[in-house]
Amino acid sequence: MSTSSVVRVAVIGAAGRMGAQTCAAVEEAEDLELVARLDAGDDVGAGVRDSGAHVAVDFTVPAVTEHNVHAVLDAGAHAVVGTTGWDDGSRGRVVEHLERVNAERGDEGLGVLIAPNFGLSAVLAMTFAAKAARYFESAEVVELHHPNKVDAPSGTARHTAAAIAAARADAGLGPSPDATQDGWEARGADVDGVRVHAVRLRGLVAHEEILFGNAGEQLTIRQDSFDRASFMPGVLLAVREVGSRPGLTVGLENVLDLS
Amino acid sequence: MSTSSVVRVAVIGAAGRMGAQTCAAVEEAEDLELVARLDAGDDVGAGVRDSGAHVAVDFTVPAVTEHNVHAVLDAGAHAVVGTTGWDDGSRGRVVEHLERVNAERGDEGLGVLIAPNFGLSAVLAMTFAAKAARYFESAEVVELHHPNKVDAPSGTARHTAAAIAAARADAGLGPSPDATQDGWEARGADVDGVRVHAVRLRGLVAHEEILFGNAGEQLTIRQDSFDRASFMPGVLLAVREVGSRPGLTVGLENVLDLS
Amino acid sequence: MSTSSVVRVAVIGAAGRMGAQTCAAVEEAEDLELVARLDAGDDVGAGVRDSGAHVAVDFTVPAVTEHNVHAVLDAGAHAVVGTTGWDDGSRGRVVEHLERVNAERGDEGLGVLIAPNFGLSAVLAMTFAAKAARYFESAEVVELHHPNKVDAPSGTARHTAAAIAAARADAGLGPSPDATQDGWEARGADVDGVRVHAVRLRGLVAHEEILFGNAGEQLTIRQDSFDRASFMPGVLLAVREVGSRPGLTVGLENVLDLS
Amino acid sequence: MSTSSVVRVAVIGAAGRMGAQTCAAVEEAEDLELVARLDAGDDVGAGVRDSGAHVAVDFTVPAVTEHNVHAVLDAGAHAVVGTTGWDDGSRGRVVEHLERVNAERGDEGLGVLIAPNFGLSAVLAMTFAAKAARYFESAEVVELHHPNKVDAPSGTARHTAAAIAAARADAGLGPSPDATQDGWEARGADVDGVRVHAVRLRGLVAHEEILFGNAGEQLTIRQDSFDRASFMPGVLLAVREVGSRPGLTVGLENVLDLS
Repeated sequence: MSTSSVVRVAVIGAAGRMGAQTCAAVEEAEDLELVARLDAGDDVGAGVRDSGAHVAVDFTVPAVTEHNVHAVLDAGAHAVVGTTGWDDGSRGRVVEHLERVNAERGDEGLGVLIAPNFGLSAVLAMTFAAKAARYFESAEVVELHHPNKVDAPSGTARHTAAAIAAARADAGLGPSPDATQDGWEARGADVDGVRVHAVRLRGLVAHEEILFGNAGEQLTIRQDSFDRASFMPGVLLAVREVGSRPGLTVGLENVLDLS
Repeated sequence: MSTSSVVRVAVIGAAGRMGAQTCAAVEEAEDLELVARLDAGDDVGAGVRDSGAHVAVDFTVPAVTEHNVHAVLDAGAHAVVGTTGWDDGSRGRVVEHLERVNAERGDEGLGVLIAPNFGLSAVLAMTFAAKAARYFESAEVVELHHPNKVDAPSGTARHTAAAIAAARADAGLGPSPDATQDGWEARGADVDGVRVHAVRLRGLVAHEEILFGNAGEQLTIRQDSFDRASFMPGVLLAVREVGSRPGLTVGLENVLDLS
Repeated sequence: MSTSSVVRVAVIGAAGRMGAQTCAAVEEAEDLELVARLDAGDDVGAGVRDSGAHVAVDFTVPAVTEHNVHAVLDAGAHAVVGTTGWDDGSRGRVVEHLERVNAERGDEGLGVLIAPNFGLSAVLAMTFAAKAARYFESAEVVELHHPNKVDAPSGTARHTAAAIAAARADAGLGPSPDATQDGWEARGADVDGVRVHAVRLRGLVAHEEILFGNAGEQLTIRQDSFDRASFMPGVLLAVREVGSRPGLTVGLENVLDLS
Repeated sequence: MSTSSVVRVAVIGAAGRMGAQTCAAVEEAEDLELVARLDAGDDVGAGVRDSGAHVAVDFTVPAVTEHNVHAVLDAGAHAVVGTTGWDDGSRGRVVEHLERVNAERGDEGLGVLIAPNFGLSAVLAMTFAAKAARYFESAEVVELHHPNKVDAPSGTARHTAAAIAAARADAGLGPSPDATQDGWEARGADVDGVRVHAVRLRGLVAHEEILFGNAGEQLTIRQDSFDRASFMPGVLLAVREVGSRPGLTVGLENVLDLS
């Protein structure tokens, strides 16, 4: 896949909300061309092969996403996956498949990018929080969402807190100082030793604020997702980058240039 | 007490941290004159009477503050009280005392102002939150303090949440919408049906953020207390206003002009 | 207009964006009934009279809004106006009209409410800012909008700054302290002596942050308008309240209960 | 310098505010030992040599800092410099001196670290902002300081904006979208095409907020410096790291582990 030529893109789950937005975003991008819209009932392998797609984007459902990715690889295309439901087993089978086909392809190896979150602000906030964590005595996470959300704290907040906890452990830091004796129910959930608070407010969508403190100073990293449209820059970035990253990549942060 | 003349001020507990700051602030104010510094061991009544103080400010300890206020009233001065520990019983006895002396004094009645918080930003935040509460579907409170604090949530946050809850009930609003099924431990403490979250972070002092939400909009009221110096404008305001408010007033908000 | 019965509502400019949202919001409210949708070409007076509307809401254009209000009054209904373009002259003519008809109607006087902003969070933020202003040494305003906005600072921010300036003057406060010697171009616009900063950022809609400072403390009032839907609670509040406020009322803040 | 042994530290300008804090912080750290306090009038070279210091920290004044660094190098110690006033000429002379002495020392080369800002939150905010810049359509900077500051915008904000502008240019991004026609005075200062706003508010110390926006999302990085104490973790980090970085390093960000 040459960087100077147009990238041909197939979208699987094209009629869904994320799929439809992806189709529209690909059509608007000058360096991308939408060559196939595939949905339930379509033969993914044939659709990708016949359209000559370089990259297929999967926004379907957990029950079919693994099958789709293998079909995309068999059709000789790279895959970008935003569908949830992947675990160690399904990721391992994709790695094996990639090793098998890439052994034959050499330099032109295929890549699969699975991303739980395509929001650039969310991914950057998490990444920066993990990098900052070793330099502060205290760290807490506040996530804020619409009141229809059934689980707390959010998956993004859990990931962020876990990454902060790992970075603190790696740097030899103990737990954040906390003299609380009464009122632990106000102190949020404990995720690997990092306190995580969940606010639910009508009018909000998905937001995260990460707070770090030292004596005399504070660092705050906040991200706001107001709209599903915010995922499109991340999806397009993944489409552009997956071709130059053979093998399995998990997490959009791994295709960002943060050097 | 004429508004054009200087107000003569006695400070009880003058050697304590708040008392010393009050002495300094009174000395710097052109319309106030510090006429007595009283401490443990001093005869409060004599000290106030002999100094000709118009107003006495009490920053002492719960064990003696009630006795001091009665002595101030017997000495014919108004009292401003920042000491904690007052309850219905002690307040009731001050009301009786005020009624007795003011029956004789007529228009020149004495006043006592007891304030749990002299921080203007904190008092205004609470007051505005109570006024805004009836106009929003959702409301939550986040308080943030230094990590040496032993109780959570803070008294200010509890007061704020209780005032929001009362205003919502008064306006016929039910609880804020909340679909949470899993992870209640991340949803903070329940104060009269309003969720209150407590963050503890090195570098912070005392902060409160009140969040209101409707479809498509958010109102946030935040106050930050960085330093004990922030209480002085409120103390001086109380000193200037107590003389024109005969009887017992509880809460600095009642001497603010918010019409 | 009895508060226990349903309020009959006509919407003028029903095909416009705000008008259409108003129609939908009225239809969803149990205590309101949509009885007429009027648009360019319709006879406003006949439409209001024939539908038996108690209240007419005008979301049209500056060129016709004054004419519409007079027609609504002649039809015996109250008016709620969200259209811009009103000045002293047009408001004065409405006052005269109201005095003439209300002299005959007695207790059942007609009311007109003209509101430049129906966002509750925006109106409350401005109102609270004006009340807080007298208690702080420093005050500044930051407004944040989408980057397609052609004017800076926003009208809401100008109004807020002017209200702060008036309150400071009323309290005898001079200008906020400012030692700036170099770099005035970074210090924002001067609105009656209050500094106002305008941020333009893709992804934002309409937001305002008002900052107050004293030694050791800060009060921040922030409002976010994410969506036009946020105006509907304010429109419905105006519809419900206008019937009990004979004469001309300018500004939604005057029908809010902030006592 | 072995990492397992204690680092011997001399402080130049030990009687100044930053120097005194550095002395106290070094004394509190278990892995550091304060071996010399030097001030105006002392022979820096002799003081460093005679005390057997491994590292000398310079918090003096622009007029003497260059001379001090050369004396430290002649005495065979590493230098950490927080004094301002360095330019291309003075930095170049230090590079030459380092090359000369390190040619003889081999693996045990001396290092000099000059840092305009030792605040970890400030340095991390700037660093993250530069990394994030390429991924957002819009970027603006708001700095907030006490009202006694004479220049606007702050040096930190200028640096941040310049780094954002460089990253945007490097990624082929044009200027942030901005349709402003009227009211440019509210749009802040233009630093390399990035808008920078300066707020001055009593009660604040030094704060910076960097805002990034895409359609539907926002990333905000904020840092607050409440107190000079906040510089000490950065100073100690520099003292610990300078020995393993021969040659000249400019900026604390270059000794942070952000991989």
